[in-house]
Formats: sequence, structure tokens, C-alpha cells
Amino acid sequence: MTISHAELRQFPVQDDCLQLGGIALTRLAERVGRTPFYAYERNHIQSRIGLLRQVLPAGVHLHYAVKANPMPALVQMMASLVDGFDVASGGEMKIALDAGMPSPRISFAGPGKSNAELRSAVAAGVVLHLESEDEMARAARVGELLGIRPRVAVRVNPEFELKYAGMKMAGGARQFGVDAERVPVMLRKLGQLELDFQGFHLFCGAQNLSAKAICEAQLLSVQLALRLAEHAPAPMRLLNIGGGFGVPYFPGERPLDLAAVAEGLHATAQVLSAASPETRLILELGRYLVAEGGVYVCRVLERKLSHGQVFVITDGGLHHHLAASGNFGQVIRKNYPVAVGNRMHAAPREVVTVVGPLCTPLDMLADSMELARVEPGDYVVVFQSGAYGLTASPTAFLGHPPPLEVLV
Amino acid sequence: MTISHAELRQFPVQDDCLQLGGIALTRLAERVGRTPFYAYERNHIQSRIGLLRQVLPAGVHLHYAVKANPMPALVQMMASLVDGFDVASGGEMKIALDAGMPSPRISFAGPGKSNAELRSAVAAGVVLHLESEDEMARAARVGELLGIRPRVAVRVNPEFELKYAGMKMAGGARQFGVDAERVPVMLRKLGQLELDFQGFHLFCGAQNLSAKAICEAQLLSVQLALRLAEHAPAPMRLLNIGGGFGVPYFPGERPLDLAAVAEGLHATAQVLSAASPETRLILELGRYLVAEGGVYVCRVLERKLSHGQVFVITDGGLHHHLAASGNFGQVIRKNYPVAVGNRMHAAPREVVTVVGPLCTPLDMLADSMELARVEPGDYVVVFQSGAYGLTASPTAFLGHPPPLEVLV
Repeated sequence: MTISHAELRQFPVQDDCLQLGGIALTRLAERVGRTPFYAYERNHIQSRIGLLRQVLPAGVHLHYAVKANPMPALVQMMASLVDGFDVASGGEMKIALDAGMPSPRISFAGPGKSNAELRSAVAAGVVLHLESEDEMARAARVGELLGIRPRVAVRVNPEFELKYAGMKMAGGARQFGVDAERVPVMLRKLGQLELDFQGFHLFCGAQNLSAKAICEAQLLSVQLALRLAEHAPAPMRLLNIGGGFGVPYFPGERPLDLAAVAEGLHATAQVLSAASPETRLILELGRYLVAEGGVYVCRVLERKLSHGQVFVITDGGLHHHLAASGNFGQVIRKNYPVAVGNRMHAAPREVVTVVGPLCTPLDMLADSMELARVEPGDYVVVFQSGAYGLTASPTAFLGHPPPLEVLV
Repeated sequence: MTISHAELRQFPVQDDCLQLGGIALTRLAERVGRTPFYAYERNHIQSRIGLLRQVLPAGVHLHYAVKANPMPALVQMMASLVDGFDVASGGEMKIALDAGMPSPRISFAGPGKSNAELRSAVAAGVVLHLESEDEMARAARVGELLGIRPRVAVRVNPEFELKYAGMKMAGGARQFGVDAERVPVMLRKLGQLELDFQGFHLFCGAQNLSAKAICEAQLLSVQLALRLAEHAPAPMRLLNIGGGFGVPYFPGERPLDLAAVAEGLHATAQVLSAASPETRLILELGRYLVAEGGVYVCRVLERKLSHGQVFVITDGGLHHHLAASGNFGQVIRKNYPVAVGNRMHAAPREVVTVVGPLCTPLDMLADSMELARVEPGDYVVVFQSGAYGLTASPTAFLGHPPPLEVLV
């Protein structure tokens, strides 16, 4: 049996052409005016959030992690769909505020906040997620200087780690947060400073496809927060337990079992509300909200034969979508799901290698993949591209124009 | 024995502070006005080119591959030091022309040139390195349209590959160039089109530290070009044999033996000039000219202890210097050479992990490395950063400001 990509049904196909936001891809490309481009679909993102609202416990607040996709129009749309934003830099904070999200619903995390960032965050009134005692002291000084009592939460580096996470962010020595065992001492100091304590932030890891591992980590996070809250100078008003919900990118990966995650979260939310009814439980999702609603679209420039192998040369590649290309040479490169957007089910099909225009063999969008037979002018679509696509790519590499982005 | 980085002596140290372009790093940082920044040293680049001129055969033309570092001030300086430029996009061509390089000395390579790029390249009069028969036909049509006879060379995909290259770009099925066996047929067609045939381009691979492998590939390239030239519609006026000279980045890597490369190239140049005295032999170097003359400089924001491990948190990282961070998660991450620029030889020393401000564990500049003990405000310097640094990095990732660049 071949290991295949998870089936993608998020966008309809009409006349063999992919439809995005109800528009045929070929027409959308004309509207955008040039390739390559990223397109993000409002409808998919809204449906995804609607589904989450339906299955998650009613009291849970849903935050959007702006870093997943900071396109201003998309963040603007998100402002009316979610309960808060998480930002990771002064730049993202500006986008979040411009989108109209009230500042107490914006949290700012990140291990290397500059004094300038702390200052504008305190002035804005967002919730600072303190990553160290040093940062706590710097935040207090900034507050004193501005005559504003900074809203703060403590980011905790828990003892446990998130199993099966694509990227672990807790457990053992980490640059994130404060080691759990140090938190009580820090909270004592925090109580002596002019800081408005709001609660805790625990985030264990990203891109997890195991519901069991996520549920386990969420329960452990709540239990740890409840223990730490006993040392807090004020009630725990919020608890951000991160997100880490994964999406399937590569052959063999299957979608997250959201029902199972929801079931676990219901139980976990009850543990929290029984012990600390005044605490707002926050789920912070980035990738899970936007990745599957986005595509990267480029155009075929040429078919090329080399030693019997067909190369499809496109105008898009590594400089726009580094993750799909394999991040500058991962040891085992895997294909993102790719299709010919204007020949979705067409025959004949053939095995081809899809590359970009750059002078490097790493500029590859699909390696030996079966696709509909393409001609110059056809559209190659890379799915699962709504998160960590454009901003995670070296757009200036080799001096090509950057891609456009549209929200449809 | 510990495996260590090759010794770096390119910049002097005075009062324990690194000197760049004759300026103390601490003063340079004040002049630049903010961190992080890249600094490239004129003197080192000039010396490197001077050394090459001294040891290489007199007739060999030295080209600069703009993609290695397209900073306009640097390219401008290069225009008076080298004999030509190679560009990889319309954007790079603009920089090359702005720098005053005569267009017949600029070559344009790349497997996915758009029709718009072909058009402006033909209008400019640069030498197009044709990567396929399709591109040849498109170039001819553009020439007809503009009433200009395009200057062209044929990029060949040779049968052999470059041993030990960090990145192989020839041998087997490739998106680059035309399979050698197809070239005679293509040259016959070329002779029937309104194209000004100039010669050939063969490039086998990049970042090679083996003089023997480079010499072997150069000789094979010249021999292949001589055989192919027999089928050409006009004399072979130029032969670009690429470059691929590597620089040491990681522990255990040693500098390229330039004397041995030069010796081999003398013999190879004689083979060429004996058989085809009118052919200009072109060596195209990017990384080798600029990588070692550049550094990336960031500033320490905080020292942080987690489970007994010291994390040095800086304002620079993955978003500015992806290669040094490990390209989004290479399986075996290796450290670039790193030092504390204002405490070059200071004691005490300690083993630390240097990270950036981003919310990802991949944002790391040095993993468990022995450095002088740092305090906030100190400068962390990443060496070997003059090529494929800034432009190969996702500067928009997480919304931090881009770094500055200076040529000193």
C-alpha cells in the first residue's frame, strides 16, 4: 500500500478547476494579476472556528496566535471571530491593535522582549507573558516610568513535555518561561512589585496530531497551574494552555481527532472550574485555524526533460514557501500535498518533479509526484499553506519579486 | 581531541574587542545605531580577490555571483574588483547594471526565467545562459520582437558530478542546463536562430572544500566544452566553469587549499588555450569572495538559567540568519563559529546556549558552546556570515524589524 496524503476536501472543484472562496482558481489568478500568490479562504477559516466553538467547552476562550499568519486583512477578520490574540513581537502587537482587538485580550509572549517592546506593550495595556525574573524586573521598571501598572502573566516551563509534538517547547532546560520549581519564588517577588498579576501561560509544543498527548498535556497544565496559583499574589484570572493542534502535511499523517481533544478538554475544564471558577481558560491556536484554509499558487513556465525525468519549472518556489520546499535541505524531504489547480482530476497523469526558478537544487515543490500532465500556463497549487508560509520564507533570496497574498 | 572550528584570523582584536574595517565593534555598533546588523569588511574582500589574482592563471576572468550577497554597496565595490557579474534574476540584474558593470560582462543564469526577465535581459544586452531548448526559443522570439540579437551561452548539465560538494548541481537528472548529450542537437537549432552564440556554462556544485574534486571537475568541464564546441555555430568565446569554492563553517572543516586549486587550474587553462586560444575562461565565485569577510552582530538581552543550563538571549536569531540557526531544524545542527565581540579572549568562560527572541526552539545561534561569560549589552558575533546570510533568511518571521547591513 502506498503511503498517501490525507484526503483534502476543503475546497470544491468545478469543471476540473479548484474553487477558492467561490471563485475558479483561473479567474482568481487573473484577478490577483500575477503569480505566485497565497490565497486564504474566509469561509474555511470561519467554518473551522465555528466547528471549534461547537465542540469545545462553552467557557473556553479561543485566541489566535498571530504569528501563524499575520496578513493584516486576515487578522482583521479574526478579530471578530476569536476572543483574543497572542503576539510574539512589537510588530505583531501593532497588527493586533490595528485590527481592533481590545488590548486586555492581547497577550505578548517571547523570550527576548526588548525594553522598547516592553514599553510599548505596557503603554498599550496588553498582557505581558513574563518569560523570566529579569523580564519581570524590566517590566516593573517600565511600568514605574510610564505610571501604568503592567498586566502580567507568568509563562511557566513545566516539568513535563508534550509527547509526539512536531516541536517541543517545554520539559528540561528551555529558553521559554520560568522553570516550574522557580515560579513560587518569582510570584513572591511579583507580589512586591507594581504588577497586575493575571495568571499563567503554559505551552508545551506545536504541530501535534495525537489527541491523547494533547489531552494529557492540557490536564497536566491545569493541574500545575492550580498548584502554582496557591503562591500567586492575586487570583488566577486567566490560564493560557497554548494549543499545539497539528494539521496533516505529509504522506501518512492523518487529521487530528478533534472530538477526542474536545472530550478531554471538557474534563480538564471541569477540573479547573471546580477548583478555580474565576479563571478564564484560554486555548491559543494558530496553525490549526489557518493552515488548511490557505494555498500557494504558482504557474508553470516550462516542462523540461533531463535524463528521462520530467521537471515542471514554475515561477514559485523556496523563496516564497520554504517549508514546502524542505527548509533548505532537510535530511528526509517530504512532499506537501500538491495538485494542478486547473486540472484537478484530469487524465493523463504522470510522475514529475516540480521546481522553482532559483539556481539551487533545493528549490523544489514536489519530488517525483503523480500529477495531471501540465503545460506552460497551468497552475500548481500547494495545499496546507495558510500558516508559516510566506513569513517563514526568505523572500529576498536571489532577488525575485515577493508573492502577493489575498483573502477570498 | 575536540573537533574545533577552523581558526579565524580575518579580523584583528584590540583591547579584547573585535575590529571590523579598522573600527572597534563597540564603536561600530554605536555608529550603526541599532542591533542586530550584518557588517561586511571591504579590506577582507579586496584581499581575498587580490590573493586570487595572484595565484590564478593570468588569463582567467573572475566573476562575482551576485546571489551570494546582493547588498548594493558591496556589489558596487565589486564592480571595480572583478571582471564580470553573474545574476540569477531580473532583480539581481538591476543591481548589477546599477553598479556600472558593462552588460556583456553580466551573465544571467537560472532554470525558470520569465518572459519579462528574458525581455529585459535582451534589452540590457547581458549574456543569457540558456537552460533549455524551450528557453532558447523564447529568447529568440524576444530578440525578434525587440530587434536585438540576444547574446547567449548554453548551460550544460554534464554527465559527471562534483565530488564532496555541499550541494551537487550536475550529474543525472537536473533542472539546470541541458543534458550534455542533447547539446549538439540544440546547437544546430541555435545556429538557425537569430542568436549570438558566446559559449558555455558548466557548474557542478557549491561549497566544496576538496581542491582535488574541484580540479577534477574543472578539467572535465573544459574537456566537455571543447567537445561540444565542435558542434557550435560560432567560436566559443567564453567558458564559465562555475566556482564552488567552499569556506569552513562547522567544527572539523578546514579551509580550501587554494594553492592546489590554482595549480590544477593552470593545467586546465593550458588545455583550453592550446585547443581554443580565443576562449575566455571564467571562474564564477560568490561565497568564496564574501562569506569570510562578513559577520552578523546581535546584542545580549538577558542571561537566563533553566535547569542549570545558561541561555544567552539575544536580539538576533533565525529570522536574520537562518543558516546559522540550522535552517528550521536540520537533523544534525552544527554551530557556526561564534564569539563575544567585546570579550574576545576574556576569562572566565562558560558553556552556554545562545538563542534569539523568537517563540521557537529552533531560534538558536550556538548550542552548548564555550564563550566568554556575557552580560546584557554584550555583542555576540557570528562569523562566516557574508554570504547567504540576510537574503537566505525569513526576515518577516514573527514580525521583528529586519537587520541593518553595513560595508566597512
